[in-house]
Amino acid sequence: MTTVVDTEFPAPAGVRSGAFGNATHLICRACGATSPLGPFYACMECFGPLEVGYAYPTVTRAQIEAGPKSIWRYQPLLPVPADIATFRSTDPGFTRLVDARQLADELGLKQLWVKDDSGNPTHSFKDRVVAVALSAARELGLQVLACPSTGNLANAVAAAAARAGIRSVVFIPSDLEPQKITASAIYDTTLIAIEGNYDDVNKLASEIAGEEEGWAFVNVNVRPYYAEGSKTLAFEIAEQLGWRLPDQIVVPVASGSQLTKIDKGIGELIKLGLVEDKPVKIFGAQATGCSPVAQAYRAGHDVVAPVKPSTIAKSLAIGNPADGPYVLDAVRRTGGVVADVGDDVVVDNIRRLARTEGIFAETAGGVTIGVTAKLIADGVLDPAAETVVINSGEGLKTLDAVSGLVGPRVTLPPHYDAFTDFWTTNA
Amino acid sequence: MTTVVDTEFPAPAGVRSGAFGNATHLICRACGATSPLGPFYACMECFGPLEVGYAYPTVTRAQIEAGPKSIWRYQPLLPVPADIATFRSTDPGFTRLVDARQLADELGLKQLWVKDDSGNPTHSFKDRVVAVALSAARELGLQVLACPSTGNLANAVAAAAARAGIRSVVFIPSDLEPQKITASAIYDTTLIAIEGNYDDVNKLASEIAGEEEGWAFVNVNVRPYYAEGSKTLAFEIAEQLGWRLPDQIVVPVASGSQLTKIDKGIGELIKLGLVEDKPVKIFGAQATGCSPVAQAYRAGHDVVAPVKPSTIAKSLAIGNPADGPYVLDAVRRTGGVVADVGDDVVVDNIRRLARTEGIFAETAGGVTIGVTAKLIADGVLDPAAETVVINSGEGLKTLDAVSGLVGPRVTLPPHYDAFTDFWTTNA
Ligand SMILES: Cc1ncc(COP(=O)(O)O)c(C=O)c1O
Ligand SMILES: Cc1ncc(COP(=O)(O)O)c(C=O)c1O
Ligand SMILES: [Zn+2]
Ligand SMILES: [Zn+2]
Repeated sequence: MTTVVDTEFPAPAGVRSGAFGNATHLICRACGATSPLGPFYACMECFGPLEVGYAYPTVTRAQIEAGPKSIWRYQPLLPVPADIATFRSTDPGFTRLVDARQLADELGLKQLWVKDDSGNPTHSFKDRVVAVALSAARELGLQVLACPSTGNLANAVAAAAARAGIRSVVFIPSDLEPQKITASAIYDTTLIAIEGNYDDVNKLASEIAGEEEGWAFVNVNVRPYYAEGSKTLAFEIAEQLGWRLPDQIVVPVASGSQLTKIDKGIGELIKLGLVEDKPVKIFGAQATGCSPVAQAYRAGHDVVAPVKPSTIAKSLAIGNPADGPYVLDAVRRTGGVVADVGDDVVVDNIRRLARTEGIFAETAGGVTIGVTAKLIADGVLDPAAETVVINSGEGLKTLDAVSGLVGPRVTLPPHYDAFTDFWTTNA
Repeated sequence: MTTVVDTEFPAPAGVRSGAFGNATHLICRACGATSPLGPFYACMECFGPLEVGYAYPTVTRAQIEAGPKSIWRYQPLLPVPADIATFRSTDPGFTRLVDARQLADELGLKQLWVKDDSGNPTHSFKDRVVAVALSAARELGLQVLACPSTGNLANAVAAAAARAGIRSVVFIPSDLEPQKITASAIYDTTLIAIEGNYDDVNKLASEIAGEEEGWAFVNVNVRPYYAEGSKTLAFEIAEQLGWRLPDQIVVPVASGSQLTKIDKGIGELIKLGLVEDKPVKIFGAQATGCSPVAQAYRAGHDVVAPVKPSTIAKSLAIGNPADGPYVLDAVRRTGGVVADVGDDVVVDNIRRLARTEGIFAETAGGVTIGVTAKLIADGVLDPAAETVVINSGEGLKTLDAVSGLVGPRVTLPPHYDAFTDFWTTNA
């Protein structure tokens, strides 16, 4: 995790004091150079990605537990002001940690938890990161909330901007799932479809971010703030386990931001004494049709070679992942791996999670459960170790992945004997 | 609300003591005759509907606040055992109460809250009622969880049964939204499509419930227990307002169960001293294409004449509502009304809620917001009174209602100048 710098940084010009809570500066993840808080995302020295640094406060479990029932209870560890809960946001977080006994039994695991982020306002973990990015945008005086998206981010940005009463412009690949298109457009965002894949959309967004004034591309020019939102997954898991860490966490990987910030969040919990120090192995999950980080992991590389995605797990279809090298670092440092499964396994595991736990995940969840199952079968995940898997999205958004495979067992006329005829042979 | 009877009832044969918590008996809502707890739903004397009666305990706010973060925190006021949280359920409830400032401004309301039940495990309020019905089924030794459903109940029953590891059989009209079909079948339920509308499906289910042993049709033969789950909407609203009641609540009406139990829950909160006594006006919302209760209300009738439904609000398309007369009673007693709006208004209000608050509701939510707007325009709802509207379901389940109306503003090639050309005229 970030080394804390004691140097005091002045508040950026035109920004109120306390705008970023206990965050004090930005720090380059590549070279360690620091810069003041602001709408910056690339290091002035080496163009490396910036991340938020803090003057960490003393925070007690009781203080957190007395806070709002949303990610804002962790305000002291986020780059948001102390009065964050008074602003209009979607107030995400505080989602269920499900004791997945039946799935654990089927997989041969001793103790398995599913962190079910489909309970968020727009039903994916993206509400967490967008809420923090929205705060940064407001404090920095940026007027348009924007993003390139593989779908869930589009939903989250459009909803958050509607709620905040500000304009949003959302860029998506034109072949996105119809569910995710409608579930963005409904919020009256300016939705722009781009003929190309996510990486094309992302490239265009970076160009616009560099040229236009006043835009907050949540995952581009305010990415350092945005990314901090994923730490709340680690915070909630620990709090829900009774202020304890699990042994293993399996995390889906697209750009790799979620995984690296779960790792950062774990480090902060330990550093602040909120949990006992212990090793937590972090595992990354990708779909084989877009598995650049898994490939780099297996090849022993430190950097990630871009790929052209082809998978039904569109939300994870980022061929050129910004945080790829940091995923490799976190996974190797903690003793985890990055692995992948094919689309058929993804579908099987969407069905498996639904059948065993009553949780309907999107394709990303199928990837994560599928990789978990594979790593157990391969003897890589320890079946005796306490395990958490992240379900980051909602099955209703990727219905096409399963709708051809499940449906009514039978269609009957509305008469009792039609039913008994059927039931006699199907009871 | 139910008059409490002091008589002690013996525990039903074969059922453990405490199986139904503080519930002590069933009582007929028509004639007041009482009967012991059991798989009964119609009065032995008059065939009237039964409801659960309690020996009300002393419950404090602090006790409730220390409970689980789900409907089980209200266990003392539900027909479920004290150890309910140790069983595998979907643990619903604890959903957001959203301060809807922008929607309030648009409607000219002083203070409006949206109780957003789309955050439940299967994204509708039905998870609440099913969780209570599942407990009753288990305690009564019934082995199959079943229901006739307009869609959301199917999702909730199939998911809850999967989680509990028991069999489920779900009956739906064959013309249901594809989203709701897939989002039931995914849980590996025995899904049976019936050629007919909900009322046909419901009639068939009643026949099966009368003939088959060991089935718990959640909304038929365990309906008294099921219905109690909706009280938790009232409990959560009061707790989230800081143990206070609002002045007005607007509730969607299909069978009418939710509305009558919100009324019952309010009565219990007052009776137990958990909130200060005050009048709360309850309003019912229907789609014009299926508005039998609104029609009865306007005609001044005490009973409801069945209709043939024709509306896009399929989740509310019950033409012969079981609790119709009790809705009329609750609404008239509290000074509310039952009103309806057409399908075009439903769609406009799905869009309005999304645009102003970042909440994507299903058609039922469009009905409820639409009726709220209409009643304000008509001078029936008091704009100065504190108002709560229930958003009982999720927009992702009824995409077809809006997908033809919203979408990308434009499709562009992945080049910066294509964007600037568009933006120059659309900024
Ligand atoms: C459902 C879901 N899970 C996981 C991810 C991966 O997120 P990240 O880009 O932070 O790796 C995404 C990204 O879009 C997503 O939509
Ligand atoms: C989303 C939604 N809202 C409201 C209702 C109305 O419920 P009730 O039958 O209790 O009136 C239903 C019933 O199916 C529903 O699915
Ligand atoms: Zn640098
Ligand atoms: Zn009776």
